Amino acid sequence: MNIKEGIISREPLPASRKVHLPGRLYPIRVAQREIGLSAPNEPVAVYDTSGPYTDPDVEIDVLEGLPRLREGWVVNGETAPRKAVAGGVVTQLYYARKGIITPEMEYVAIREGLKPEFVRDEVTRGRAVIPSNVNHPEAEPMIIGRNFLVKINANIGNSVVSSGIEEEVEKAVWACRWGADTIMDLSTGKKIHETREWILRNTPVPVGTVPIYQALEKAGGKAEELSWEIFRDTLVEQADQGVDYFTMHAGVLLRYVPLTAKRVTGIVSRGGSIMAKWCLAHHRENFIYTHFEEICEIMRAYDVSFSLGDALRPGSIADANDAAQFAELETLGELTKKAWRRDCQVIIEGPGHIPMHLIKENVEKQLKECDEAPFYTLGPLTTDIAPGYDHITSAIGAAMIGWYGTAMLCYVTPKEHLGLPNKKDVKDGVIAYKIAAHAADLAKGHPGAQRRDDALSKARFEFRWQDQFNLSLDPDTARSFHDETLPAEGAKVAHFCSMCGPHFCSMKITQEVRRYAEEKGMTEDTVLEEGMKEKADDFKRKGAEIYL
Amino acid sequence: MNIKEGIISREPLPASRKVHLPGRLYPIRVAQREIGLSAPNEPVAVYDTSGPYTDPDVEIDVLEGLPRLREGWVVNGETAPRKAVAGGVVTQLYYARKGIITPEMEYVAIREGLKPEFVRDEVTRGRAVIPSNVNHPEAEPMIIGRNFLVKINANIGNSVVSSGIEEEVEKAVWACRWGADTIMDLSTGKKIHETREWILRNTPVPVGTVPIYQALEKAGGKAEELSWEIFRDTLVEQADQGVDYFTMHAGVLLRYVPLTAKRVTGIVSRGGSIMAKWCLAHHRENFIYTHFEEICEIMRAYDVSFSLGDALRPGSIADANDAAQFAELETLGELTKKAWRRDCQVIIEGPGHIPMHLIKENVEKQLKECDEAPFYTLGPLTTDIAPGYDHITSAIGAAMIGWYGTAMLCYVTPKEHLGLPNKKDVKDGVIAYKIAAHAADLAKGHPGAQRRDDALSKARFEFRWQDQFNLSLDPDTARSFHDETLPAEGAKVAHFCSMCGPHFCSMKITQEVRRYAEEKGMTEDTVLEEGMKEKADDFKRKGAEIYL
Repeated sequence: MNIKEGIISREPLPASRKVHLPGRLYPIRVAQREIGLSAPNEPVAVYDTSGPYTDPDVEIDVLEGLPRLREGWVVNGETAPRKAVAGGVVTQLYYARKGIITPEMEYVAIREGLKPEFVRDEVTRGRAVIPSNVNHPEAEPMIIGRNFLVKINANIGNSVVSSGIEEEVEKAVWACRWGADTIMDLSTGKKIHETREWILRNTPVPVGTVPIYQALEKAGGKAEELSWEIFRDTLVEQADQGVDYFTMHAGVLLRYVPLTAKRVTGIVSRGGSIMAKWCLAHHRENFIYTHFEEICEIMRAYDVSFSLGDALRPGSIADANDAAQFAELETLGELTKKAWRRDCQVIIEGPGHIPMHLIKENVEKQLKECDEAPFYTLGPLTTDIAPGYDHITSAIGAAMIGWYGTAMLCYVTPKEHLGLPNKKDVKDGVIAYKIAAHAADLAKGHPGAQRRDDALSKARFEFRWQDQFNLSLDPDTARSFHDETLPAEGAKVAHFCSMCGPHFCSMKITQEVRRYAEEKGMTEDTVLEEGMKEKADDFKRKGAEIYL
Repeated sequence: MNIKEGIISREPLPASRKVHLPGRLYPIRVAQREIGLSAPNEPVAVYDTSGPYTDPDVEIDVLEGLPRLREGWVVNGETAPRKAVAGGVVTQLYYARKGIITPEMEYVAIREGLKPEFVRDEVTRGRAVIPSNVNHPEAEPMIIGRNFLVKINANIGNSVVSSGIEEEVEKAVWACRWGADTIMDLSTGKKIHETREWILRNTPVPVGTVPIYQALEKAGGKAEELSWEIFRDTLVEQADQGVDYFTMHAGVLLRYVPLTAKRVTGIVSRGGSIMAKWCLAHHRENFIYTHFEEICEIMRAYDVSFSLGDALRPGSIADANDAAQFAELETLGELTKKAWRRDCQVIIEGPGHIPMHLIKENVEKQLKECDEAPFYTLGPLTTDIAPGYDHITSAIGAAMIGWYGTAMLCYVTPKEHLGLPNKKDVKDGVIAYKIAAHAADLAKGHPGAQRRDDALSKARFEFRWQDQFNLSLDPDTARSFHDETLPAEGAKVAHFCSMCGPHFCSMKITQEVRRYAEEKGMTEDTVLEEGMKEKADDFKRKGAEIYL
């Protein structure tokens, strides 16, 4: 596994260069991507999740792992530990509550263009989370909360049927290249520990996992053989490795399982169905629920964030917003407060399959039950009838739920329900979710969100094709689509494209009209003047074919 | 051009057959598609736009055109005319207002599963339109109105840069195959009349055009050389051919043009920019506006529906919901009432580029200004930053605006802003819009809309892979995605897929749990009983690996 063999994507995005903004409180450098435009247009800086891979100045050897950015960062006068001492706590929430701004907080403040005090206050309130296991210093700090940019997560990971380690590392790097803010390693196949190690050491964003998957492997694949001890040891093992957040299906209680009996699609969460099976097999309460306090002790010692899983999320439109789903959500609310009391950071997972008119209720109920802890949803998919296109069925729901207040959107790829995503699927999923997240940022009026839209639209109107491509979420695809019909270099400055041809380009005609009006010193008022007739003849004679 | 050469797609969709429902008032046969499922599951009937092409019993020769379905249909005791006598009127609105249920009304009533009286009443009220030029008897009647299924339109047509006639006919057939409810021929290249003739004679759905495009070609491509006479003759020419609705940019008034001067993207409607140029060049009011009454005379004589174009729709997020856009909408409202007074059918076109939080205002204002005439929007695109993926940026907006009350959604393909769509782009656009329209139908609670979701989800839960594929919007893609990792026929009955592998399939585990509960006669109550412990041991011993 070696980047020189070209397995790992490294080239900068088109016309882009890495720039670094300095901290004021700490000696940190916050990476941004700057997209260069043709003169006289200023470059446009955009949020960048691609990490050092797109920085030609950084040498990367996958065998060594990424530079350990956060190693040596000093918090509260002490170098960040690799693990808290017994009974200790190193969470961002803990520091925030003490009034301390950590380097991570300043980093995300600069990244989002906000004040560090605001970041600290949102973390204190539990309304935002900075997933940052002290043992994952390779990750660039980021924040998840509804008063920040909407984030997206990309799931990767092998199953027993498919995919090797190298592929999974490249999928992680590839997902970050196109905009994934966090990665979840959902591997359930062979070499789970080793795969995760490679991913952690080489991923520039926080990494989440579902520890019950590895625990199940340790139990020989038999849910009923699981035990609290196996699960606990798995948590410690993964926390030691540096996993930044754990999905835990703590809210699927024994008494909720029968609520799923009449459902069209039962329990569709993998972890949830495993826990339900365990609960029924043992007729005992979910051990993640009953041992929650002990789990908090592990989480706070490393600053692993809770991602409280929605084991009972609906897997079909028919099951949306039902009693099972909302019963579990209430339990997640109870656990949120328990975790907060132990200074643990918490996000709450959400559905799933939800028709549009039932989406808002999910956010409202989550905010209420979980006291505004960040919401992290899978889609939701707004119809069941388009397998092969569930990145689209779910981007619709994701954009809406992001607008309503969801902090992070877990992507869905075109392969959902059908198979394990390959690299193309990962990219398709990430781009669809960048669209959803950005549409949500615009709708929420996030300061600055519209700058990129405006810059791209201005480039479009001015026929700066290269700038339009370079400003887009996927410059490669935009360029190749354009070039399918007009591949010549000259077409990149042409005042039309193949869609309408030269005679029918509305933007070209508008420019003619506008230029004519400017030349003649016409304003809104003068256009309405009687004297227009004369000017009109002149325009007709001279101005009409300027561009042909 | 010959279907025997395989240019035109003809095979039925997988596991599907054409069935016909008889009329009660008229001797009509309404086509549906019936998707066969594995026993004992009943077949599922779905709305079908593919026309005779997917019916193996119908011989089709593209040179002859499709069977003339509506030819000879008798309305009010008379065979439907090819054109009204001078001063006459043959519109569906005219008949509806007289209390007459036409064969077209009964056809769409059966198609939508509603009463013909309801259809007539919605048409009478102007809240729904049945586009049905008497000279386009090949088209199967359909209805556009917000109390019916949400419809989608697919734009096809060549530009001077690209694409021949054969390609465009196949694009039309192809778009209908995947679910397009109407087709717009936006050709601006060579042979506009001939291209349109082939499309009309071979398309099983209503066809719309933008007549100003052909008028402009007649004027040598020079907007300022356009005249009312050229335009009028073009309307008559296209009405004679059988075009079912005309987009006309009647609302771009001279005084509105300056309102676009400060916009980021000016005027982005092709027809709108042409009319704006003409208005400024002549310093005269838009001739489509000033000759509106005469145009009504033409429209009512053939029953061509008005599609009043939004020439001043926003072309960027920055320009959304601005003064120019809403000024024009008010004028469209004025014209709607004028057209209605002449018994003409009317739909109203809408934007464009709109961020999510500004979408609802568009529908509310349109319903108010245009007295509930059907709304027909282009997307809207919810961000500008994803050229190459505008089928997705706009499917988000389309689903939402459909839910809010838009009757028909004009698709946007991945090539939008970049080039002329090819066949793959047409399909991608249609599927994205079928998703948006169906998501809207679900959110609106359209009766029966959820049946297909439920059938597919049930198939999914029961691991009936073939049924799942066949019920999906695009069986070919769903099947091929599944087969990428598990191509063996045996995998089509396997109780897992490559996404999770056999140990981690939540649906499989749920089934185990459920089956166990059933076998033991467990109900919600008994699960909670004390005696569960005993049963649990039993389950652990016997039931846990049923499927391995």
